[in-house]
Amino acid sequence: MTTHDSAPTPDLAYGVDIIAGSTHALGSYALSEQDSINFAAAWDPQIFHVDLAAAAAGAYGGLIASGIQTIAIYERLVVLAVFSGWSIIAGRGLRDVRFLRPLRPGDMVSGAMKVDTVHFDARNRALVTTTGELTNQADETVLRLVMEVYVRAQPERTA
Amino acid sequence: MTTHDSAPTPDLAYGVDIIAGSTHALGSYALSEQDSINFAAAWDPQIFHVDLAAAAAGAYGGLIASGIQTIAIYERLVVLAVFSGWSIIAGRGLRDVRFLRPLRPGDMVSGAMKVDTVHFDARNRALVTTTGELTNQADETVLRLVMEVYVRAQPERTA
Repeated sequence: MTTHDSAPTPDLAYGVDIIAGSTHALGSYALSEQDSINFAAAWDPQIFHVDLAAAAAGAYGGLIASGIQTIAIYERLVVLAVFSGWSIIAGRGLRDVRFLRPLRPGDMVSGAMKVDTVHFDARNRALVTTTGELTNQADETVLRLVMEVYVRAQPERTA
Repeated sequence: MTTHDSAPTPDLAYGVDIIAGSTHALGSYALSEQDSINFAAAWDPQIFHVDLAAAAAGAYGGLIASGIQTIAIYERLVVLAVFSGWSIIAGRGLRDVRFLRPLRPGDMVSGAMKVDTVHFDARNRALVTTTGELTNQADETVLRLVMEVYVRAQPERTA
């Protein structure tokens, strides 16, 4: 027996349920020093992300998180708050990702997302374009990006 | 005593040393199943990234890596191969990030980067725009992106 992941799942939102212009608060993430160093050591081992002494003496006066980790934090928040309730097929990509301010250990960021457009195609897919932001505890924007995801347009019924 | 991170460092490349049009091979990364699941559990807990049974029954016939992890793998490769030798100030952002094919556990990807442009400003900075790719063992492009980084234009000499 084959399980079809495209079988109707009443609890999930499909493309037809997603409203352009809708906005979503995504919750918050507190970044610890160890979390920041661990991520950077694995994925972005630049000195100002991993070396406390060098970072303290450097341009930022202390460690800053990898920009890639800011994207990962945004992804975590948007998946938990929104995408886990959507019938996602796949991510298509990101556009216009800007690291607007440094994210530092000890910072707490909050996420927000807006649905910009929902475009349907002939393959029962909707391409949902969203704009996302992370804002720190001082209400400064740390990250802004555009994320595009494919969602099933509506439940498919297999014969 | 203050250590200036802007002091000349003869071993590092500055903006004046970076050649538009130059290309760089970035080495390779082999993705294990555990690595893929660990990353997704932390940063992108969508079912097709973390749940083996559900992923096997789903649209891809098995687990696929988080798109955010493909960006992280590219970052790791470009930092180790190139950016660790540049006088980097900070990343500015990413543009036109496309997840062109799924990355699966067991895949081995290789990275390549090209310097597109080097633009100097009045603050002794160079904005270096690069295009990067990850290619899998079947020579299929998995990821393509544009990455912009600020680099010190030339060594500063403090009085």
